[in-house]
Amino acid sequence: MPELISEHACFGGLQRFYRHDSAAIGLPMRFSVYLPPQAEGKRLPVLFYLAGLTCTEETFMTKAGAQRVAAQEGIILVAPDTSPRGANLPGETDSWDFGVGAGFYVDATEEPWARHYRMYSYILELRDLVMNTLPADPSRCGIFGHSMGGHGALVLALRNPDLFRSVSAFAPIAAPGRCPWGEKAFGGYLGTEREAWRAYDATELMLVMKTPFPNGILIDQGLHDKFLAEQLNVDDFALACEQADQPLELRFHPGYDHGYYFIQTFIEHHLRFHRRQLE
Amino acid sequence: MPELISEHACFGGLQRFYRHDSAAIGLPMRFSVYLPPQAEGKRLPVLFYLAGLTCTEETFMTKAGAQRVAAQEGIILVAPDTSPRGANLPGETDSWDFGVGAGFYVDATEEPWARHYRMYSYILELRDLVMNTLPADPSRCGIFGHSMGGHGALVLALRNPDLFRSVSAFAPIAAPGRCPWGEKAFGGYLGTEREAWRAYDATELMLVMKTPFPNGILIDQGLHDKFLAEQLNVDDFALACEQADQPLELRFHPGYDHGYYFIQTFIEHHLRFHRRQLE
Repeated sequence: MPELISEHACFGGLQRFYRHDSAAIGLPMRFSVYLPPQAEGKRLPVLFYLAGLTCTEETFMTKAGAQRVAAQEGIILVAPDTSPRGANLPGETDSWDFGVGAGFYVDATEEPWARHYRMYSYILELRDLVMNTLPADPSRCGIFGHSMGGHGALVLALRNPDLFRSVSAFAPIAAPGRCPWGEKAFGGYLGTEREAWRAYDATELMLVMKTPFPNGILIDQGLHDKFLAEQLNVDDFALACEQADQPLELRFHPGYDHGYYFIQTFIEHHLRFHRRQLE
Repeated sequence: MPELISEHACFGGLQRFYRHDSAAIGLPMRFSVYLPPQAEGKRLPVLFYLAGLTCTEETFMTKAGAQRVAAQEGIILVAPDTSPRGANLPGETDSWDFGVGAGFYVDATEEPWARHYRMYSYILELRDLVMNTLPADPSRCGIFGHSMGGHGALVLALRNPDLFRSVSAFAPIAAPGRCPWGEKAFGGYLGTEREAWRAYDATELMLVMKTPFPNGILIDQGLHDKFLAEQLNVDDFALACEQADQPLELRFHPGYDHGYYFIQTFIEHHLRFHRRQLE
């Protein structure tokens, strides 16, 4: 059972922070949950949010302004941390885009990362934990995320459409095998053999699929995002969606950058998008 | 002129961070501004938010979720820092409730604080700066705040009802002369002579007034706020309002604590309260 660290009333519901021992990670992990006021005596749709580089389980709950809409729509929100903490591996904290705060939602195969850096399996473990300990409906579960977490959400959903029935992203790293962030992370965690990267690359995954999400995928992208040209490659993902006959609502927003002022502006649209698909 | 440090699109408007040389403080200061989309070519109502202990000019803009409503209502939001930074006075960073991050919105008279710790005058200076450099309407200006900043907002408004036409607070330190936080801060900044404290104590100020805000003052207070009994004394302020024939909308909220999950829940009500008064 996860240990409740703190709890705060918020929009008639409860903002909670938990700690638990993760089997996938082999270390204690933290996550946050927003339980809307409707969470009395019935199972509700649940939405996992994966955050970006340097973030924690707190970032989304503090900065995105999502609880207001979740309280209206009766959605449980869950946000994990972005990497193991306390593995104490050499070089683990040398970069902001690799190691601590940068797990990239993959199961590492390279040493010394392979033992603890297993964030892909961790998200699935956390999904099970949430279904077993919170009033969440396993048949109405979606996933979304931002930047590195947008990558994670797309990959988790494409590989597990039975577990995550709706998916969206803010400014995702949409083709990580083709950008500096992804090449550094995948090279470090998965090794130099690029074939092994495909299982964690949303664009590569989409290219071998046929309409995995018939109700569509939603992506919001700022045009003033300094990472757009070099790191995100949302155009590549859009092309892959076209080839896969995957409906994609890709919205470009002039003036908006990569941060949470962008996310809070469009968070309501994402929650309502998921809520419609999780009927 | 203030120097623009950064700018982010947000709800169709602009979230900005500025730095300027403050005459009142004698040091550079930072503040944040949210300019709603209506800020093209006309003067808008403006609302100053004073934050609590340990906060900065960023806290409110990041955590309160106010921009969404400000964009709807066409309100400019301004949030200053909570103390001078870089005065390098002995002991300045020893406590979280005195010195850096804890200016208490007073003009210190005691050494070594008297030179830089002049946050009362600073807020008035910042108000002038905003009116002179942003499309803000000086005749439609309100103020609100949280905890130490709720105290600051009430005091600034009661002493300058011509400058701040509407006032509200979240969990304010409403009678600082009677609580440990206030006694420590006022003792340090203003000296042991308690007569000098009255000018910065909302309850004492209200007791010698007659209906300073005929349209009412709004206060939201969580009942699960661990500081309520010992530090905040909102009941004392409510009694003073009664004696002063001052209408007070004092709302107690079961389960809510002292943090920004509480504030984001009720922020919309505050912005609409001010907007109605700043017609």
